[in-house]
Amino acid sequence: MVLLEEIYDSHIHSEGRSQKELTEMVKAGIKFANSCAFYPVQPRFAETLIDLFRKLEEFETERGKRVGMKITPALGIHPRCIPQNWKKALDFLEENPPRIFGEVGLEEGGSLEVDVLKSQLSLAKKLDVPCIIHTPRKNKVEMTQKILEILAELSFPENLAVIDHVSMETVSEILKRGYHAGLTVEEGKLSEKDVLDILKKYGAERLMINSDTGFTSLEYLSTSKTVSFLIERDVEREDVIRVACKNAKEFFRVRC
Amino acid sequence: MVLLEEIYDSHIHSEGRSQKELTEMVKAGIKFANSCAFYPVQPRFAETLIDLFRKLEEFETERGKRVGMKITPALGIHPRCIPQNWKKALDFLEENPPRIFGEVGLEEGGSLEVDVLKSQLSLAKKLDVPCIIHTPRKNKVEMTQKILEILAELSFPENLAVIDHVSMETVSEILKRGYHAGLTVEEGKLSEKDVLDILKKYGAERLMINSDTGFTSLEYLSTSKTVSFLIERDVEREDVIRVACKNAKEFFRVRC
Repeated sequence: MVLLEEIYDSHIHSEGRSQKELTEMVKAGIKFANSCAFYPVQPRFAETLIDLFRKLEEFETERGKRVGMKITPALGIHPRCIPQNWKKALDFLEENPPRIFGEVGLEEGGSLEVDVLKSQLSLAKKLDVPCIIHTPRKNKVEMTQKILEILAELSFPENLAVIDHVSMETVSEILKRGYHAGLTVEEGKLSEKDVLDILKKYGAERLMINSDTGFTSLEYLSTSKTVSFLIERDVEREDVIRVACKNAKEFFRVRC
Repeated sequence: MVLLEEIYDSHIHSEGRSQKELTEMVKAGIKFANSCAFYPVQPRFAETLIDLFRKLEEFETERGKRVGMKITPALGIHPRCIPQNWKKALDFLEENPPRIFGEVGLEEGGSLEVDVLKSQLSLAKKLDVPCIIHTPRKNKVEMTQKILEILAELSFPENLAVIDHVSMETVSEILKRGYHAGLTVEEGKLSEKDVLDILKKYGAERLMINSDTGFTSLEYLSTSKTVSFLIERDVEREDVIRVACKNAKEFFRVRC
């Protein structure tokens, strides 16, 4: 049963899900999604990323259309996908501004990762494009702190950054600084109960849920299940709508 | 119910199927598959193909392992995926010989396509590597004829070529020339009944079935369904084993 007309999964990798599964997502109410650039082996060439961006823009959005899902591509250089000639991919993004930068961020936080992140954030600021910023599983607190410092250093606009895959430890500081927080509901990340707790403690204003589903994760319906969970726990409908759809629509400027 | 212990789907694009669906394929008996190189938008760069080859070799085979499917990558330049600097991809294949070339072939049959096909076939002959040769939906008879002429011109070894997506019109000539024929069971290609008819008319010796499942096709279990259909129609078990597994295992030199 679909308890909400429209759900926006703010972070998926649609390439890793079949058309059949995208159809099931739509049936479960997930009619909007951002498909984030990622390459499952470290690419040797920026050219691979450029063709990947084209694939997301042309092919993945089309696959979405076929099943009734509005897919917005998020284009960028993931910290685990940095090729040697990465500046060529950045040049492409400057010449072909994406609707969303993503996912960008830090994985281990070395100087190359920091350079790549800063370059992309500077470009996003210049172009006024919202950014999906990845935080890693390991050293999440430390890496989140580093990202927040970079954002401060760049005087990055609050309304252009969602820090994603937040944990119970990182969410508070992120919201305090005025950024949005992406709540990823997946084994090893947040549970439905964690989402409820965060929502109760901090309010719905700058939260958005996602599944991060893609090449390996099996949980492509986790946003829909979270919606059911929240409604069953008597969370106000307006708040559920905010975290499950409205906030993301506003933040990513998606109309429909 | 699995009616055959082992099925070999000789032509898929595993990238387009989720891990969940690969698991379902294994449960339906499909424990072997060739994952053919294809890029769903025409790549601008050979570099994209090189990283795609690495993705198939490293990531897709690993995804297969996780669910119990032996995935053999087929690497090559598809006639719809020819970048300007395609020779760089060919050089990569010469330096890193694949276990299978594929899918190569003709789509519209222009001179660039013919050049790319001949270069790859020459390399495959030199390296003694089996080839999966694509024939298109449109002008299938004409394009198949053109491919057969190219194979003859190159004195291409019969035991290295499977001509794929054959039709009722093309299969006879292909088998007469000594090549293997790939029977793709999918809407718009062959039906289960077509496979039965071909098998009865020509014998099982050089036939192999596949689904061509991938980025858009929904029919990822069609080889398993075809096996059930053939067994229900009282085809000899030895013949079903040949077209569903044994021929492909021998042709592609896959052991397990």
